[in-house]
Amino acid sequence: MSNIPKIVILGAGYGGILTALKLQKQLNYNEADVTLVNKHDYHYITTHLHMPAAGTDNPENARVNISKLIDEFKIDFVKSTVVQIRTQDKKVILEDGTLSYDYLVIGMGGEPETFGIPGLAEHAMSIRSINSVRLIREHIEYQFARYKREPHRTDYLTFIVGGAGFTGIEFVGELADRIPQLCREFDVDRSLVKLYNIEAAPSALPGFDPELVEYGMDVLTKKGVIFRIGTAIKECSPDGVIVGDGEEIRSKTVIWTGGIRGNRLIEEAGFETMRGRVKVDEFLRAPGHENIYIIGDNSLMFNEEGRPYPPTAQIAMQQGVASAHNLVAAIRNQPLKTFAFSNKGTVASLGKGEGIGVAMGKKYQGRKAAWLKKLIDLRYLFIIGGIPLVLRKGKFL
Amino acid sequence: MSNIPKIVILGAGYGGILTALKLQKQLNYNEADVTLVNKHDYHYITTHLHMPAAGTDNPENARVNISKLIDEFKIDFVKSTVVQIRTQDKKVILEDGTLSYDYLVIGMGGEPETFGIPGLAEHAMSIRSINSVRLIREHIEYQFARYKREPHRTDYLTFIVGGAGFTGIEFVGELADRIPQLCREFDVDRSLVKLYNIEAAPSALPGFDPELVEYGMDVLTKKGVIFRIGTAIKECSPDGVIVGDGEEIRSKTVIWTGGIRGNRLIEEAGFETMRGRVKVDEFLRAPGHENIYIIGDNSLMFNEEGRPYPPTAQIAMQQGVASAHNLVAAIRNQPLKTFAFSNKGTVASLGKGEGIGVAMGKKYQGRKAAWLKKLIDLRYLFIIGGIPLVLRKGKFL
Repeated sequence: MSNIPKIVILGAGYGGILTALKLQKQLNYNEADVTLVNKHDYHYITTHLHMPAAGTDNPENARVNISKLIDEFKIDFVKSTVVQIRTQDKKVILEDGTLSYDYLVIGMGGEPETFGIPGLAEHAMSIRSINSVRLIREHIEYQFARYKREPHRTDYLTFIVGGAGFTGIEFVGELADRIPQLCREFDVDRSLVKLYNIEAAPSALPGFDPELVEYGMDVLTKKGVIFRIGTAIKECSPDGVIVGDGEEIRSKTVIWTGGIRGNRLIEEAGFETMRGRVKVDEFLRAPGHENIYIIGDNSLMFNEEGRPYPPTAQIAMQQGVASAHNLVAAIRNQPLKTFAFSNKGTVASLGKGEGIGVAMGKKYQGRKAAWLKKLIDLRYLFIIGGIPLVLRKGKFL
Repeated sequence: MSNIPKIVILGAGYGGILTALKLQKQLNYNEADVTLVNKHDYHYITTHLHMPAAGTDNPENARVNISKLIDEFKIDFVKSTVVQIRTQDKKVILEDGTLSYDYLVIGMGGEPETFGIPGLAEHAMSIRSINSVRLIREHIEYQFARYKREPHRTDYLTFIVGGAGFTGIEFVGELADRIPQLCREFDVDRSLVKLYNIEAAPSALPGFDPELVEYGMDVLTKKGVIFRIGTAIKECSPDGVIVGDGEEIRSKTVIWTGGIRGNRLIEEAGFETMRGRVKVDEFLRAPGHENIYIIGDNSLMFNEEGRPYPPTAQIAMQQGVASAHNLVAAIRNQPLKTFAFSNKGTVASLGKGEGIGVAMGKKYQGRKAAWLKKLIDLRYLFIIGGIPLVLRKGKFL
């Protein structure tokens, strides 16, 4: 048995993969054993999932095999699902095995936050993985095919997106582009198809620049999106949703993008949580656990105004880099570095050739914002896989 | 009001379209008014539907716009659905109108014959139209996507084809080719997918050359098809089928190819029928109705051994040509011609590059039979649409 420290990273999302890549680079030979655990043998680019979900891009372009990203001579990879985290024993129980650790990085994805709305967990779909977006795409196409056999069932042609945050807005943008294609493919009259975007907050993209929000809603409305802003979903059933004013919208397709909470395994492990998330210390560690770093969806941090940062790819990536730095420092008995989120801005696509965004303090809209979104995606591919990955996947973006 | 005779053709399938095309050629100017009625504005190539149903070809390649086939200066086309045939008034009631006729050609398609098997009409799909095959294709893909979200539900990956006649055999051949593609697309282990072909008769392709049947079953078995021959489906439910020996096969996908009966409108019109079909006279006319020709699926004729001819594209086409000839003769007060079916043979595909068939008294198997099948399809395109249609659709076959 070696006495070098064992680092186990749970999850190969934005946070976990960056931790792994940085450790791979910074650790010297035999300085630590690093094991990356992930449910799938691929990493997926969550910010690109709205496209395969709508069917405007192939899901293959939203994933990368982990073996293409990590150096398996330096990092072990275990494809398995985490069942339990036992902090008292320093063990992680997997579906098919057990791993012990000295240091743990929890980078697993969160879960849809349904705010207790009845039926949402059971009957709505979410944009959260390759499998889930393939289901959404196939589900939508299937409704067109079903409608043609039961032409009185126009409810098959009504699509409801719950939540007008970034995921919801980007998804309706793609789906609005896809609907005319589906209408042609299945000989369906476009005027029969309804695409709703329902948001309980008084505005779409709450907190985002109001001028850009207005521009974005205008673009999407012209593409045929029906907005119901300031309207809460009260209930979801297999037959549709009931909204705030009691109106029933009949549909077989509800996609919920209304929020993310922490992974249930975090609570089950005994960490103190708020909506499933752990308020980490300035070094990204779980309170009371110097050897456990929590990054990404399960990590709770507050900005200067005392509001929690929303879980984004951007913050998860920065946390991944920081946790790797602090792990190396801890192993070498060097001082840890305080984490501070540096907001580079946010850009949202609104379907083909359209977008809105703020980057480096400047506002963008239209074609420029759409390009910026592509550049951000390309930059990410470059960060995780270098030029070869940009060339392999980037051409499709 | 003109006093030239009115000919109404119901259905633009193999029989109806051939009647229309031949009338268009043979009738002189002002000799008759011809109206073709069809539910869709396109004709479809039923013998090609097994491919888009399995997803191995685009449904567009199995249909042709009727406006590309008929000369609208010579033949009127009405896109509508027939609701009722009133022989006493010489009228056809459409969903959105009424047509009166002097001569009527009934060329509408039949309906699936379910032999009273409980649940089959409600829960099984059929390969019978562009809409139905798009539903089958989307349904199958959807099951793969659903399985990935509910990995304990291996029943989603079980596909049941009821009937091992020509349609059933050709469809399982295509689906067996498609399954490995779907497994790759959705990351599904091929060994979890089950494809059953269940036939009540003691042999697949009953009545066909036994040596070729054996060859065909061997090819399909190697592709992974599980045959249950001499096994009746006793019941079909949303959860699968129960077969002869009481065994339950759990599945969400049952495609019934077990037989065709006549269209219900024929019985409702008061014609005497057997399984919904009318035993026509030697000139293809309904007994007691000198002005009504019945061709294709609704027409019943017996061979020299006293057995009914199965409803095939081949016999429907020959009947279309013959009914056009007899209509022209009737209008010109010339003697009618007796119809005799001339069997040119039968070729069945077994998926890519494989087939079996008998043509002009010679047996074919393997690649040669597959080619022969393609040649027959090309010949059909040439008959209905000439070289332009062969070039437009034929390259995809």
